[in-house]
Amino acid sequence: MEEKMRECIEKCLECANACMHCATSCLKESEVNMLRDCIRLDLECATLCNTTAKLMQLESSYSNTIAELCAQLCNACAEECEKHAAHGMEHCAQCARMCRECADLCMSMSTAA
Amino acid sequence: MEEKMRECIEKCLECANACMHCATSCLKESEVNMLRDCIRLDLECATLCNTTAKLMQLESSYSNTIAELCAQLCNACAEECEKHAAHGMEHCAQCARMCRECADLCMSMSTAA
Amino acid sequence: MEEKMRECIEKCLECANACMHCATSCLKESEVNMLRDCIRLDLECATLCNTTAKLMQLESSYSNTIAELCAQLCNACAEECEKHAAHGMEHCAQCARMCRECADLCMSMSTAA
Amino acid sequence: MEEKMRECIEKCLECANACMHCATSCLKESEVNMLRDCIRLDLECATLCNTTAKLMQLESSYSNTIAELCAQLCNACAEECEKHAAHGMEHCAQCARMCRECADLCMSMSTAA
Repeated sequence: MEEKMRECIEKCLECANACMHCATSCLKESEVNMLRDCIRLDLECATLCNTTAKLMQLESSYSNTIAELCAQLCNACAEECEKHAAHGMEHCAQCARMCRECADLCMSMSTAA
Repeated sequence: MEEKMRECIEKCLECANACMHCATSCLKESEVNMLRDCIRLDLECATLCNTTAKLMQLESSYSNTIAELCAQLCNACAEECEKHAAHGMEHCAQCARMCRECADLCMSMSTAA
Repeated sequence: MEEKMRECIEKCLECANACMHCATSCLKESEVNMLRDCIRLDLECATLCNTTAKLMQLESSYSNTIAELCAQLCNACAEECEKHAAHGMEHCAQCARMCRECADLCMSMSTAA
Repeated sequence: MEEKMRECIEKCLECANACMHCATSCLKESEVNMLRDCIRLDLECATLCNTTAKLMQLESSYSNTIAELCAQLCNACAEECEKHAAHGMEHCAQCARMCRECADLCMSMSTAA
């Protein structure tokens, strides 16, 4: 497997991890009411990042197509998290950063194909 | 959730189940050497079917896009399984049928959007 | 694969489905604040039910051990959901029923070993 | 989340990654016939490592129990991979190392509880 794909797999797993941590942390916040969309997007993004990693691990010929979709969802999750990061939620800030990095790597896989 | 999406979720889970059963059965066949692509496609297809179900369960706005990709992978898996079904592999025949049904439902979700 | 295991796999997938539907529905309730534990347990239970199904699909020798743990988590999730079912939450009532059924089947796999 | 659990989550994800890479590589080997058990154990181990990570990410009270089971399966997978590593399969050697490391960390989580 080429180095670039290995990096992308690792970033996807790291991003899924940050998303799950963000979702779990949101569920403990007093403002959980305002974090519904964030929790749902975290769960969606973690799911798709894990799947993107798994299809790449299987060296699937669908890897680049799923990576493109993953990049879109990562950016959507980042956008939502950035709203709450602006109000001091550290787990959202961390998740947003990871999502942006993952989106960039996934997009570069997609266009490299 | 609307009835149609519920059906699609159930079919995706049923298809992932058939794919995993096919992969496990292939690994026990004496002709495992000829079943490499089948095993890999089974694993890819099971992964994407599960993810499609999960994004639909989360009522993700990416449900229809992922359903379209899932339909493509289901058809690719069916095509490979049909080769071995023609040589009497029952698990491949069953997996191929399920993949075709899942592809049809996923495609109908995708175009309904 | 024996009939009993096939039934257990299907029940695990059905239960995971009910848990995810419950989590997604809880996230839309006005009382989301009181449903934090329910959402978290739904996600835990869906995860473990899916994994129990997958290890059984792979005919793993760890199937019965994981089924026992799955039964425990299903019962814990059912207990939490029953509290909210008592206050009229239909998705919690449905999830609790499914979790109890899944726990029974998983436990019977475990003791059958 | 405490530092120790964070490390264990990362190791589980890394181990699942090595297992999936090993399974995909085994499927390409000319000796695939002798690698059936290895592929199946790789898939089982990847599944359980991912689930252990996910339950820890959700801060589940079942984390330590699943970690103990994960340690057992990691050791079983390592044992199988070590046989093939002795005959020069580099992906098996790498997978075995990762499984042993993951088993140790998971076991330490389990006894720390």
